[in-house]
Amino acid sequence: MTQVKKIGIVGAGLVGTLMATYLAKRGYTVNIFEGRADPRKAGASGGRSINLALSNRGWLPLKEIGLEERVEKMVIPMRGRMMHDDQGFLTFQPYGREGQAINSISRGGLNEVLMDEAEKNGVKIYFEHKCVGVNFDESILYFERDGKRGKYQADVIIGADGAYSVVRRLLQRTERFNYSQYYIEHGYKELSIPAASNGGFQIEKNSLHIWPRGNYMLIALPNQDASFTCTLFFPFEGETSFASMKTDEDIRNFFETTFPDAYELMPTLLKDYHFNPTCSLVTVKCFPWAKNKTLLIGDSSHAIVPFYGQGMNSGFEDCRVLNEMLDQHDDNWEKVIPAFQVNRKPEADAISDLALQNFVEMRDLVADENFLLRKKIEAKLQDLYPQKWVPLYSMVTFKENLKYTEALSIGEKQKAIMDKVMASDNISKNWESIDFESIVNQLEA
Amino acid sequence: MTQVKKIGIVGAGLVGTLMATYLAKRGYTVNIFEGRADPRKAGASGGRSINLALSNRGWLPLKEIGLEERVEKMVIPMRGRMMHDDQGFLTFQPYGREGQAINSISRGGLNEVLMDEAEKNGVKIYFEHKCVGVNFDESILYFERDGKRGKYQADVIIGADGAYSVVRRLLQRTERFNYSQYYIEHGYKELSIPAASNGGFQIEKNSLHIWPRGNYMLIALPNQDASFTCTLFFPFEGETSFASMKTDEDIRNFFETTFPDAYELMPTLLKDYHFNPTCSLVTVKCFPWAKNKTLLIGDSSHAIVPFYGQGMNSGFEDCRVLNEMLDQHDDNWEKVIPAFQVNRKPEADAISDLALQNFVEMRDLVADENFLLRKKIEAKLQDLYPQKWVPLYSMVTFKENLKYTEALSIGEKQKAIMDKVMASDNISKNWESIDFESIVNQLEA
Repeated sequence: MTQVKKIGIVGAGLVGTLMATYLAKRGYTVNIFEGRADPRKAGASGGRSINLALSNRGWLPLKEIGLEERVEKMVIPMRGRMMHDDQGFLTFQPYGREGQAINSISRGGLNEVLMDEAEKNGVKIYFEHKCVGVNFDESILYFERDGKRGKYQADVIIGADGAYSVVRRLLQRTERFNYSQYYIEHGYKELSIPAASNGGFQIEKNSLHIWPRGNYMLIALPNQDASFTCTLFFPFEGETSFASMKTDEDIRNFFETTFPDAYELMPTLLKDYHFNPTCSLVTVKCFPWAKNKTLLIGDSSHAIVPFYGQGMNSGFEDCRVLNEMLDQHDDNWEKVIPAFQVNRKPEADAISDLALQNFVEMRDLVADENFLLRKKIEAKLQDLYPQKWVPLYSMVTFKENLKYTEALSIGEKQKAIMDKVMASDNISKNWESIDFESIVNQLEA
Repeated sequence: MTQVKKIGIVGAGLVGTLMATYLAKRGYTVNIFEGRADPRKAGASGGRSINLALSNRGWLPLKEIGLEERVEKMVIPMRGRMMHDDQGFLTFQPYGREGQAINSISRGGLNEVLMDEAEKNGVKIYFEHKCVGVNFDESILYFERDGKRGKYQADVIIGADGAYSVVRRLLQRTERFNYSQYYIEHGYKELSIPAASNGGFQIEKNSLHIWPRGNYMLIALPNQDASFTCTLFFPFEGETSFASMKTDEDIRNFFETTFPDAYELMPTLLKDYHFNPTCSLVTVKCFPWAKNKTLLIGDSSHAIVPFYGQGMNSGFEDCRVLNEMLDQHDDNWEKVIPAFQVNRKPEADAISDLALQNFVEMRDLVADENFLLRKKIEAKLQDLYPQKWVPLYSMVTFKENLKYTEALSIGEKQKAIMDKVMASDNISKNWESIDFESIVNQLEA
């Protein structure tokens, strides 16, 4: 292999720009090709403001490239789930231990910071350059700008162009490419709760709010302007669904009955409902992730549903691990590319499955008394044995040095143990006096 | 819905032509668009001669359209598996009961008969018309011939264009289309054993021959000219693989050592090996199978691996079931299309999974003593209680009125029962004196 000097990245999203910064810091010449216009320039259509939950696996790489302080100013910590029942009564469930939180952050805001940082490190971002082809044998990237074709001869190409990746679609045409795209029956639509007239937050600021309703749910994440971005996760078809809500009357009635406390705070409900698109939720899996010197990272190789808040975080982890492997293998990409995909594929599969499972937990189980009791017992186990019993959610969210696969495997053991605990007589009454030590010991057995 | 009169079928393969005949017999105007040239005309490249195993689910529709007698003359019944060990010793295992067999038939020969029959019923087949687009809203088919575009306004479109279906690829671009393509790590290559110099068969005629070797295998099916078409199913990569066999010496040594009795009968081994392509084996799953009045059938919606001999048979069953549903719903396609995909999707998934599992059985387990004993006990159970205990292979292969899903579900029960039987003490010695009735009764419990 000739020495790798020039790296072409497709996509200037969160993962592409973070990866570019890592690579520029290693001394590579990095060019990013992005189909959309520069969101930092006036006139560019900013798109909707979506917020994401940044947690430990995402923080670690941001720290590594030196963005911690800047990003810290942009987040609102959410310390737990605030559940709203259909009477408007609230239940709070902490995500982890004292001081642990996930962080609401604007996707667009974070993306701009990452673009700035990449450019500061010498990365060139070519906006409005849409990738239209890849020569996998010679690592040439073809793009279109204003109807004109161009190409870029790279040494390594990285596809960081998201769930609907062009690079992946081109890879799909090569021999024996395993691929799946799976849509859940729910879509989502963004709505909003504005700031109070005095500029304050209208509901608890430092929580992720959930209105769990069995087969569907509404959630809300805080924004820095004291508004909340709400997302309705809702079936596309069926008796109660996007398809069944036809008139303004239908929409108002549904929200007033189902989410009464939220409804009161949503003056722009009808406008938001009609104006914002109904989006679908896809899980993409594929393998291999690489062909010769072209490699997929982030959503392009493993798009997941958002219910574990790990889409961006797992993509950032891809960047960190790839950088680490470049250290380990002295920047020998011939070794790094195969090692990376073998290392990361099981991790991506693990978080992908966890994310699908967590939808059921969020929309349904969090309103279930037995489930809440189970969480309480697990929290107690963690309080008593903080090194030994870390609940699955905490392992995934707060233990950035534990692999997703390991978290999943420990989580399965915990589940089997807790199933037995929950089946014991009168557990709801005597749970505080059970033998916690013997429970923890089962995990080590 | 306007009344359906004109049906456009994409693909003049086995399934497309059979479906066309069914529909022409119902009175529809049927046009088939096929990318390749007419194989019945001199000069058309015939492709390789591949044989397939026609079994009961395939026979039933052939009978229904009146082709039974004609096709009967084309087949060679295979009554069981003839296993060849690495010393050339043989073991025979019947597929079913007396008189039951699967039938080796030439794909090309059967396809030509089906083309003739479709045309006899008034179907028009447009060869060298490559489908390049579908308007799903208005049921318009776009094709290309000699670089020129054309279109066909249909009332209903049926995509019967195989594992690499163009119609499905177009469907994949529509919203929320679930799709997976999965390649196993093995490929296949066709080889041959010629007829004897006196014109006879060089190995037992009425068997499907298998050389099971653990992770790979060679099989051979008889042809009417007394030759056998052999297929090597072999890993693409690894220590013993297509990739590792580089020189003529490698190939000869491997065959001589691994399949000694076959090697002696393969004078054209090296030529076949170099000339014939190494093909991959894909499983395709998708859903929905339909959009408006366009419907996928056969491999285009459920390509499977060949190890249960059910690819063509399940495709033919699609045709029979679709025809049956048109009877039931008085040719109301608005009802038939959704009913068809809901009915057939679980069936396709069932045979798809069975086919993947059967690879392990064919290449490995058939050389395992415990497995052979299990098969013997099951055969005895069937002899004693022919109505009550039908082994899974027989249900799939010989019971054309039993759904694949039912066969799979009964098969799972049988497996659990047989696992217990096989775990009992000294079963290999005393199996003939066990309590067969109690075993059968467990199945009914």
